[in-house]
Amino acid sequence: MELERYIRDIPDFPKKGIMFKDITPLLKDARAFETAIEMLAAKYKDAKIDKIASMESRGFILGAALSMKLRCGFIPIRKKGKLPYETIREEYALEYGTDLLEMHKDALEKGENILIVDDVLATGGTANAVCRLIEKLGGNIAALCFLIELSSLNPRKKLEGYPIESLIIY
Amino acid sequence: MELERYIRDIPDFPKKGIMFKDITPLLKDARAFETAIEMLAAKYKDAKIDKIASMESRGFILGAALSMKLRCGFIPIRKKGKLPYETIREEYALEYGTDLLEMHKDALEKGENILIVDDVLATGGTANAVCRLIEKLGGNIAALCFLIELSSLNPRKKLEGYPIESLIIY
Repeated sequence: MELERYIRDIPDFPKKGIMFKDITPLLKDARAFETAIEMLAAKYKDAKIDKIASMESRGFILGAALSMKLRCGFIPIRKKGKLPYETIREEYALEYGTDLLEMHKDALEKGENILIVDDVLATGGTANAVCRLIEKLGGNIAALCFLIELSSLNPRKKLEGYPIESLIIY
Repeated sequence: MELERYIRDIPDFPKKGIMFKDITPLLKDARAFETAIEMLAAKYKDAKIDKIASMESRGFILGAALSMKLRCGFIPIRKKGKLPYETIREEYALEYGTDLLEMHKDALEKGENILIVDDVLATGGTANAVCRLIEKLGGNIAALCFLIELSSLNPRKKLEGYPIESLIIY
């Protein structure tokens, strides 16, 4: 199945000059959505993943679906102030300035194998902040995986040393 | 399995006087998370669900996981300005004032069976707005389901006529 056929280009979203990759045509198609998740699951079926960590909001869709296929737990990574219990935080860069990502302090146990899942790998800045959150609690980053990778933004430079898989690379 | 054991009470979140039901202990436990999703899937396995519609952000986690079990498509319902393509909108009440929920105009076909999935049914206001969005496009609301229902807020009054299932009722 050509997954690219289910990704829609939206020019000038969220602002002028950006070509946004809309994944909703893939999500709404039962067969395309399941195929994408099965393709990711196949890569990690023998990796003994304990938990998947994903970033809100679209990352939750891919990460939670993959949790069912890999039969592992799920950790939500959220923007500041959204998680109700004690958290740890990491900064990540925005176009202008920085923002914070948070994870619960009891989200994982030391030594657990964590798979980071998001919809799009763009600059790598968010994914890098998630790696730091997980390692701060002693988690082992088994790998990072994405539905889409925007290679022109050179995101792997920010994630050197970590195994990365992307289903669709632009 | 007693799913209630995996729900954590957080007093005064997001503000004083609110007892927040934290579902992250359930999500991080592979067996508890899968059990909850299997229990929901069992209710709808013969319902010929075409698509699940869920509200950001926590609703995405439950809805996407259930999409894998029911092998159906997934529709994200988002707050205003987040969806990139043409949308339809419905207002829902906040404590003070109102806000907007959006869904893509091409999210579903007329006559499709839609299951609405969210983590918590509280006042019913958000769920009611999602029902209106789906019916505006001609979708058939097969049912609504929730991990948690706060019955003291009397949410079913806003959702009369729709089948509703909740795994944990407080």
